[in-house]
Amino acid sequence: MIEVGIIMGSASDLPVMQEAADMLDELKIGYEINIVSAHRTPELMFEYAKSAHTRGLKVIIAGAGGAAHLPGMTASLTPLPVIGVPVKSSNSIDGWDSILSILQMPGGIPVATVALNGAKNAGILAAKIIGASNPEVLARMSTYMEELKEKVLKSASELK
Amino acid sequence: MIEVGIIMGSASDLPVMQEAADMLDELKIGYEINIVSAHRTPELMFEYAKSAHTRGLKVIIAGAGGAAHLPGMTASLTPLPVIGVPVKSSNSIDGWDSILSILQMPGGIPVATVALNGAKNAGILAAKIIGASNPEVLARMSTYMEELKEKVLKSASELK
Amino acid sequence: MIEVGIIMGSASDLPVMQEAADMLDELKIGYEINIVSAHRTPELMFEYAKSAHTRGLKVIIAGAGGAAHLPGMTASLTPLPVIGVPVKSSNSIDGWDSILSILQMPGGIPVATVALNGAKNAGILAAKIIGASNPEVLARMSTYMEELKEKVLKSASELK
Amino acid sequence: MIEVGIIMGSASDLPVMQEAADMLDELKIGYEINIVSAHRTPELMFEYAKSAHTRGLKVIIAGAGGAAHLPGMTASLTPLPVIGVPVKSSNSIDGWDSILSILQMPGGIPVATVALNGAKNAGILAAKIIGASNPEVLARMSTYMEELKEKVLKSASELK
Amino acid sequence: MIEVGIIMGSASDLPVMQEAADMLDELKIGYEINIVSAHRTPELMFEYAKSAHTRGLKVIIAGAGGAAHLPGMTASLTPLPVIGVPVKSSNSIDGWDSILSILQMPGGIPVATVALNGAKNAGILAAKIIGASNPEVLARMSTYMEELKEKVLKSASELK
Amino acid sequence: MIEVGIIMGSASDLPVMQEAADMLDELKIGYEINIVSAHRTPELMFEYAKSAHTRGLKVIIAGAGGAAHLPGMTASLTPLPVIGVPVKSSNSIDGWDSILSILQMPGGIPVATVALNGAKNAGILAAKIIGASNPEVLARMSTYMEELKEKVLKSASELK
Amino acid sequence: MIEVGIIMGSASDLPVMQEAADMLDELKIGYEINIVSAHRTPELMFEYAKSAHTRGLKVIIAGAGGAAHLPGMTASLTPLPVIGVPVKSSNSIDGWDSILSILQMPGGIPVATVALNGAKNAGILAAKIIGASNPEVLARMSTYMEELKEKVLKSASELK
Amino acid sequence: MIEVGIIMGSASDLPVMQEAADMLDELKIGYEINIVSAHRTPELMFEYAKSAHTRGLKVIIAGAGGAAHLPGMTASLTPLPVIGVPVKSSNSIDGWDSILSILQMPGGIPVATVALNGAKNAGILAAKIIGASNPEVLARMSTYMEELKEKVLKSASELK
Repeated sequence: MIEVGIIMGSASDLPVMQEAADMLDELKIGYEINIVSAHRTPELMFEYAKSAHTRGLKVIIAGAGGAAHLPGMTASLTPLPVIGVPVKSSNSIDGWDSILSILQMPGGIPVATVALNGAKNAGILAAKIIGASNPEVLARMSTYMEELKEKVLKSASELK
Repeated sequence: MIEVGIIMGSASDLPVMQEAADMLDELKIGYEINIVSAHRTPELMFEYAKSAHTRGLKVIIAGAGGAAHLPGMTASLTPLPVIGVPVKSSNSIDGWDSILSILQMPGGIPVATVALNGAKNAGILAAKIIGASNPEVLARMSTYMEELKEKVLKSASELK
Repeated sequence: MIEVGIIMGSASDLPVMQEAADMLDELKIGYEINIVSAHRTPELMFEYAKSAHTRGLKVIIAGAGGAAHLPGMTASLTPLPVIGVPVKSSNSIDGWDSILSILQMPGGIPVATVALNGAKNAGILAAKIIGASNPEVLARMSTYMEELKEKVLKSASELK
Repeated sequence: MIEVGIIMGSASDLPVMQEAADMLDELKIGYEINIVSAHRTPELMFEYAKSAHTRGLKVIIAGAGGAAHLPGMTASLTPLPVIGVPVKSSNSIDGWDSILSILQMPGGIPVATVALNGAKNAGILAAKIIGASNPEVLARMSTYMEELKEKVLKSASELK
Repeated sequence: MIEVGIIMGSASDLPVMQEAADMLDELKIGYEINIVSAHRTPELMFEYAKSAHTRGLKVIIAGAGGAAHLPGMTASLTPLPVIGVPVKSSNSIDGWDSILSILQMPGGIPVATVALNGAKNAGILAAKIIGASNPEVLARMSTYMEELKEKVLKSASELK
Repeated sequence: MIEVGIIMGSASDLPVMQEAADMLDELKIGYEINIVSAHRTPELMFEYAKSAHTRGLKVIIAGAGGAAHLPGMTASLTPLPVIGVPVKSSNSIDGWDSILSILQMPGGIPVATVALNGAKNAGILAAKIIGASNPEVLARMSTYMEELKEKVLKSASELK
Repeated sequence: MIEVGIIMGSASDLPVMQEAADMLDELKIGYEINIVSAHRTPELMFEYAKSAHTRGLKVIIAGAGGAAHLPGMTASLTPLPVIGVPVKSSNSIDGWDSILSILQMPGGIPVATVALNGAKNAGILAAKIIGASNPEVLARMSTYMEELKEKVLKSASELK
Repeated sequence: MIEVGIIMGSASDLPVMQEAADMLDELKIGYEINIVSAHRTPELMFEYAKSAHTRGLKVIIAGAGGAAHLPGMTASLTPLPVIGVPVKSSNSIDGWDSILSILQMPGGIPVATVALNGAKNAGILAAKIIGASNPEVLARMSTYMEELKEKVLKSASELK
């Protein structure tokens, strides 16, 4: 079952956005991945965003760099929660443009923004959102967080 | 049914954070509201965050200013999605400190960050998260977005 | 003849954007003024932008604050030049968000960005664009610049 | 017919500014390209800018880095629209100096600023300005935007 | 004897720039004060800057806000040292634009930049420059610095 | 005798934080070094910080990058002075996030923040804190500062 | 017994710096307070800093705004720990200048920097430093932190 | 005759500061070059700055990075004009710390700040300061500026 839609403005964002897909694989959440550009394929973005919830998606993850309009525009076209990933692309000013044009959405149209290049966290956040109403996924999240802890403890004991 | 927990570090954050509560009222989502300080009541924060999902909460909204650790620390202690609201408090440097210490979480522990002082959007995002698995709330979101549009169109026609 | 379309996301942007209209009045360029929100009325924005050149417009001036997507999205939907005015709205971080989300457009979709709250200059730039192919307007621009000089010289002589 | 003048402060800006020329070639707009330094050849800049419209130019594209005065000074000396390209030169602080000294022009003297190193977009914007009064160029712009869309759709289908 | 020329782009800069004049009065250095706009009276700026050293001036103090080109352009037209005062004018972004467009001059054309709104220090710096070759003024500077010390010591003893 | 506890959120911070340990070695102050993550091992952080003063530690040095919560959270759990080292980790935005989320602590819970990647200075500051009540360590500090001077003087004489 | 020296560059810093004194009063730590300017009374600063440890001081708190050199210069002249308070004075650019010129000290000369205008935290940090070697003060710190917690809990229960 | 003193805090600043010396060589101005650290050799800095004008120096050029106190402290100790060069050293945050801690001097103590790493311009500015009272050096400055122009014109003609 595909519950998460991952979109990005350009194939050049794929190396960053792939981490979201990898995380969803690890957490056993079904997803689809597409290139949808707010500025070059605005009609496609409209269609994609407007139909997302009718196709069974529960969360959309949108990554973009520079003047990053894809996450916010998608959020304005769907009742689903949209997670925005600011991408530090080659045309970005140290990422500040990507962050601010995703984060600073006006009242009424939120985007759940994660850290710069934080696609991995976008995948985890999508799983947490699904887990909010799905005890099995919720339990998987608890397990994942337990594993994070174990890794740190192992690394700590190796230090000694 | 209480599905959203709103927490903030200090009563001085209430004027900003109240907008999240108001939005949830408007969208008919049950919530609770508490003062929990990461730095002054760390044990309370631990208890609150660790028990949240066992008490039936589905989403936590956490607001804080300056070196804002409450959203991220809460996210590290719960499998639930945590929405972070950077508050432009009196001890903040134009809000940059609040934004960066909420947004830039490390891999593994996402916080769904909204705009500076964006508590209203945090309320909407919480509803969107619940609506992802609740068709009734999803429909309410669509209606809400339709109303936003009507207000703009009315304002536009008044301009003419 | 209406040659310039002025649009803005919200009536709250009107005090800033009115200066563009005033300037066009002074320079005797016909214009229309509308409220069109990228996030709250995306369909209206599509219609407006896609039809603009068919309705005889030659330039679009778009003002917006915060995560300001209206200028860039409009530019992606029209072959006309779009002038973007970053507005320092109440939800803006000192204007940086407005500036960066208008200025930093990706390759292929330019927005002619002016200074923060620079709606007056947007009006002048629209006239300069029309004047590029209209000798009468071009001459009016030269006159306008001459008048600017006179005002400074007058102010300079008053100082003495 | 030469309709666009491309100027830059130093030969070291050429690798960035060449993209404007390439774009104009692609869009079949005639142009000339010169080195004119605001700070080292101020008299030449005066002559160039003052005579530009008398020589038939319709748009000037000016690129500069650091304390970038060439675009604004040129705009103060011509009734033509001036497009400013902030260049991230070696003496620039991450491009912020270039951007702000081009963008933040005072009332009366606009510069149409594009993204950092956005010379390609400067070329497109020049074409859009010419197209505003030239149906053939306008049609070429529509075609160009259609081609952008096709490239994204092709890239999207390759992803699948 | 007039040794210092104070110029500014607009009468609105006078409240800030007056402090330079006051300081020169206090230090008994002759000066003239003029409004010269880089963008609105570029020819006047040329004349002023090119003739300054022939008229006996030894230092020029130039203040400007926003995209502040007056100090740098003046420096490109005179062999005299130019002191730049970034003015936090109403069209400035917290002063960053003024500072960077004055400070970040390219190799070959220095501007001696002082603090934001630091016109008082510009006056002192002009006196120090004159004092470098004038023992009487140099001695006056030493006295001035001694007086600064006395004021602090007096303020310190009052605290106790 | 172990008087200083060095902690960091991840083994990837070790290359930076090692300089604190090296400095303490040089100044003959006993220390321990551990990996303790605020976000992945919050319980361990609680235990570590709450017990630190009972185990004889006098100062804690905590290093972290990005949304760096370890120094501030540790400071909220111990009566001991905590020195925070902002680490410019790979997930940091030029270090600004690390700096602001360590420095801008709310009233009541100070963190003694040092420069970005300033672990060496954190080690020296820890020694200065211990030296405040330990004449022998204080004397060692004076000697260390004397040696710094000698190195500069040697380097200066080599220049000549 | 006077254990803490509070210094500041100007009487205008007193409203901010008084909070350090108030905090030390509350925590029963003896202190002295003086005006010492790095730039206007450099000799006094030398004397003050060089003699501080010989007069029994254990910690120095130094506050300054703008290009804030007092904390760093004091730290270079004493083996004692120096706490730096960046003051958002009228000549400061939103406090960034004060913060960076105190925080970013070179290797060898640390300053324990607290938040912008964080004089209250400077007082607490001074007490924590003294408490590191003084069990009675350490216990007082634990009590103080307990009281902070009580205040938050009281405020939280009032909210309900 | 040695008229300019070049100082820097560390031998690591030499590659940047050498450009000032080279420029003075080219302009035939005598200079001396020394390492003087504000933080590691404060007494040496005192001696150097206090005696500079008695030894015949007319201008001091001081370069430093990070929390750069050398230019400002030197300026507080001499009646001579001090030129500050912000150095983008390895411990600097993109140069912002160096710039702000040199530029933002308080009223009474100016530093003539040049661009980041702008040591070449510091050399030219020193010559302009000397030339203000020395017709021969003034003429050399005019020649130098003429040569700059020739180089640009040559580069421009090569482009064609």
